[in-house]
Amino acid sequence: MASPAPAPRPTITATASTWQSLAADKRARQAASIPREWILPIHRLPGPKVNEVIGFPEDEKCGLLTTGDLEVTNASIEELLANLTSGTWTAVGVVKAFAKRAIIAHQLTNCLTEIFIEQAITRAAELDAYYDKYGKPVGPLHGLPFSLKDQITVKGLETTMGYVSWIGEYATENALVVDIMIEAGAVPYVRTNVPQTLMWPESFNNIFGRTSNPYNRTLTSGGSSGGEGALIALKGSPLGIGSDIGGSVRIPANFCGIYSLRPSAHRVPYLGAKNSLIGQDSVPSVLGPMSSSISGLKIFFQTILASEPWFRDASCIRKPWSEEEYKLTEHHNKGRVLSFGIMWDDGIVKPHPPVLRALEKVKRALVKKRHKVVEFKAVKHAEICMVAAKIWDAGALQDYTTTTSITGEPIITTMSPTPFAPSTSGAPFRPGSTPSSTVSAYDYWQLNTAKQALRQEYLSAWQATSTTSGTGRPFDAILCPAASWAAPPHGKNTSVQYTMVWNVLDYPVVVLPVTRVDQRLDVRRERSEFLGAMDREVYESYDPKMHEGSPVGIQVVGRNLEDEAVLALAEIVDEALKADA
Amino acid sequence: MASPAPAPRPTITATASTWQSLAADKRARQAASIPREWILPIHRLPGPKVNEVIGFPEDEKCGLLTTGDLEVTNASIEELLANLTSGTWTAVGVVKAFAKRAIIAHQLTNCLTEIFIEQAITRAAELDAYYDKYGKPVGPLHGLPFSLKDQITVKGLETTMGYVSWIGEYATENALVVDIMIEAGAVPYVRTNVPQTLMWPESFNNIFGRTSNPYNRTLTSGGSSGGEGALIALKGSPLGIGSDIGGSVRIPANFCGIYSLRPSAHRVPYLGAKNSLIGQDSVPSVLGPMSSSISGLKIFFQTILASEPWFRDASCIRKPWSEEEYKLTEHHNKGRVLSFGIMWDDGIVKPHPPVLRALEKVKRALVKKRHKVVEFKAVKHAEICMVAAKIWDAGALQDYTTTTSITGEPIITTMSPTPFAPSTSGAPFRPGSTPSSTVSAYDYWQLNTAKQALRQEYLSAWQATSTTSGTGRPFDAILCPAASWAAPPHGKNTSVQYTMVWNVLDYPVVVLPVTRVDQRLDVRRERSEFLGAMDREVYESYDPKMHEGSPVGIQVVGRNLEDEAVLALAEIVDEALKADA
Repeated sequence: MASPAPAPRPTITATASTWQSLAADKRARQAASIPREWILPIHRLPGPKVNEVIGFPEDEKCGLLTTGDLEVTNASIEELLANLTSGTWTAVGVVKAFAKRAIIAHQLTNCLTEIFIEQAITRAAELDAYYDKYGKPVGPLHGLPFSLKDQITVKGLETTMGYVSWIGEYATENALVVDIMIEAGAVPYVRTNVPQTLMWPESFNNIFGRTSNPYNRTLTSGGSSGGEGALIALKGSPLGIGSDIGGSVRIPANFCGIYSLRPSAHRVPYLGAKNSLIGQDSVPSVLGPMSSSISGLKIFFQTILASEPWFRDASCIRKPWSEEEYKLTEHHNKGRVLSFGIMWDDGIVKPHPPVLRALEKVKRALVKKRHKVVEFKAVKHAEICMVAAKIWDAGALQDYTTTTSITGEPIITTMSPTPFAPSTSGAPFRPGSTPSSTVSAYDYWQLNTAKQALRQEYLSAWQATSTTSGTGRPFDAILCPAASWAAPPHGKNTSVQYTMVWNVLDYPVVVLPVTRVDQRLDVRRERSEFLGAMDREVYESYDPKMHEGSPVGIQVVGRNLEDEAVLALAEIVDEALKADA
Repeated sequence: MASPAPAPRPTITATASTWQSLAADKRARQAASIPREWILPIHRLPGPKVNEVIGFPEDEKCGLLTTGDLEVTNASIEELLANLTSGTWTAVGVVKAFAKRAIIAHQLTNCLTEIFIEQAITRAAELDAYYDKYGKPVGPLHGLPFSLKDQITVKGLETTMGYVSWIGEYATENALVVDIMIEAGAVPYVRTNVPQTLMWPESFNNIFGRTSNPYNRTLTSGGSSGGEGALIALKGSPLGIGSDIGGSVRIPANFCGIYSLRPSAHRVPYLGAKNSLIGQDSVPSVLGPMSSSISGLKIFFQTILASEPWFRDASCIRKPWSEEEYKLTEHHNKGRVLSFGIMWDDGIVKPHPPVLRALEKVKRALVKKRHKVVEFKAVKHAEICMVAAKIWDAGALQDYTTTTSITGEPIITTMSPTPFAPSTSGAPFRPGSTPSSTVSAYDYWQLNTAKQALRQEYLSAWQATSTTSGTGRPFDAILCPAASWAAPPHGKNTSVQYTMVWNVLDYPVVVLPVTRVDQRLDVRRERSEFLGAMDREVYESYDPKMHEGSPVGIQVVGRNLEDEAVLALAEIVDEALKADA
């Protein structure tokens, strides 16, 4: 892609600029990057008391999207690619339509950070010119717009990752994953909001503020890829790239009613992207796709692997896309049906009623298709979460303060809007104030050893399901909640236990949407026995009205490096659900 | 296999037993485990002034091996398996022949630790009974004896790994790799000597003492899998399993004139084996085969992968044996010839004359076969070695002392026989006396990051060789020394820089034998310019007479996870050498 000329760099001097003024300047530059003609006057936007805005882009009150824009942005990813690669739709037309809808989404949920639509249209015009000249597409993703979490670098743009301290850091190169997508013909055009440090499952930072959930703006869109969640839910992007260290693509997908894949580590190249806790490779962050369909996830994953990323990023595993594994050859051994393990709870917290209803719905749909669905008991999830927290915390405080000390911006310790002050009960996603340097490398090795023992135990438990699965084979996948609750209010997403276990185990996971919270159906179920204090607390916090309208998804969990199979298994679940709708 | 009844456990009490008495008791029990009839009287053994003993087992002075024993122990691994699986040779006969030759090897070089021949013969008899009853072998390795480095646990046996403190620790299970081999029909019968901690490239410890090189007993057999090196060189085992964190299967193979494979990490299961630095997974130890032929390496690797170890050891990568990669389909792209990068030195130390002669010999043989051999310059090997040393040292002292403090045995700081005292200039393979706890987890993450940057740089450099290779593709493999010297005298193997770089990069490597030091050919070459102080020191230390008779091999280095290809490429090099002999 033509590299845009770098914007003038703000001079950071401790004496002249406070972190607040740096952030204000960045916000002003962001505002200036929004095409004027797509800014809606305040009276045309939904008022502050309007919670649900998911339908607004198509509402006549919005009025920005043409019939053509709607056709493009409502098309499936297969339709988009068919029309783009056949020359039926121009790249410029498609990019413009999604860009316009992205700007609407931003005005509704504050989901964007970097906005570089002009460059994207320039690139799209180049693609169209290529098509006109040669009569064929540049690549399989010719003209497909894609969005990026605000950590994935694009040449010439700043990457703040929610840190004021990184304002003014302009990338000299694209992250490798961006290069691969561009080589395939895709066009980046916006980046999306995150929490400062990325280590928080909501999306708020000292520069860009807070992203809301388009299904109910009093609720969080999740995090850390929460900007992507809101944007894709509003169809402002057909495909986004996020990252996931403890649920960061899955939580926003779950809360925003879209699809995501947390791939096994080291299949999608991380090279060139910014990150927190760099060098911590025991429970690492992985890049993964978010999309409005499983097809979007699959197309992304295939595109990345087709580029042989192991010859470009030294951390990538040499494992090409396996069509055999995608076809479930091993799973359908001797023509047997599939068997899914269903985990109703993780042994720590029983999920809220809408989450249980989603699981029941999935079970019913699969049984109708004659698959087996058998209970699976969680294996030591509390221990697994504890060891991961210790591993991350071992150097987290030093990692964060190394960055924040550049400008003196505070490390955010609560995402609650009121009162906006550090929580008195401690921040659940921040290491304590004890210097993390007290964890020695040797102690860190012991944490790794404990983690590995838990991985081994889980592997054995999964293998042992061959005696209960009903197929003579271990479960083909595990189905479980993606959180104990549907999207909670801002500041209240205080746990990621349902997602982070799979990072520790390095199992690939697809999140897919199942239903939405319905006060009439999801009434509080009386309970008098609890798994523990946290279970009771979560139970008591349930207020169906508060979650009203929030989507609910589930996790389809596969086995390490069996990403192709988990995509295929998630398709089977998704199709069963649609058939049963 | 039938589990042997555990031997009586020595009671370890701090008051009653010194570490010396524990070690003496263990040695006495080892001596008692040797079949009486295979112990040679002192006058029939080579005297202390006889350096070369490689031919002794077949010498009439030895006289223990029958014609049948010689036929068996001199057979290729293909012949062994063909005769065993066809029922031509009995498992008992084959196991007995190798066991006898192993006991001879032990009396020559002190290469064994645990000796459990009786159990092995019992197991072999079971295999023979199975064959008699069913007319077919138990598995593809039916009756093949295999040896084990003294860290790979066998149920019912102690595993000391050279630590007095671990005397009396009886394994309740086999290491997974042992189970897999046994399931395939193979029969373990001896374990082999190592250095205390495994972190030293010679093989000496406070229990079993020192292993010597059968080509020249004044020289080391290398380490840490040095017992395997001596045993296999003397044909006391057709196939051994060692481990390699910085060269530990390759150094003994190089010094003892045999073959070894250091596989990419996480393909061969480590589960159940003992180790040093457990939890350190940045530059990890890997298990790998050692054998008298490349076929032995390949048979081992295929056997392990055929068992789908990723369903049994949570640290294993889901990557089956790839026949495509073994056939070099990608390498022979468009029918092109192969191109080998040859690295004459690592930029730190130029190798001694016999090592250079070995490289020249390999180059000539390959060019004769019309392959391309083009110079490759080492990329930052000093930095790579430095970062690995820091990573290992980060917690090493705590790791070692946690074990040695149980009995108070000293941590060995020199392997020099005279004077047997700690070196005044510091031990090259021991962290300093500064407590390693001063390395924080955060600092450790920074070391990981530095390592990863070097890996990335190496990948780029290798990719860039497509412009110089002559094939339009990057080099198919890199050929380089396995050490700057041939086997040195005991206590003098003070560097592993030529092997450890590939551990840091996680590239698979085959070591294969090329020649032996010949005083007449390997004269000192005059040099006046040096790469640095270490280069000068190594140059000045060269004494052709001292290394006389010592084998010299080379490393064939492949790309991460391309283990199948590196085996095939090593076969091509090996065949070219044999054709040019």
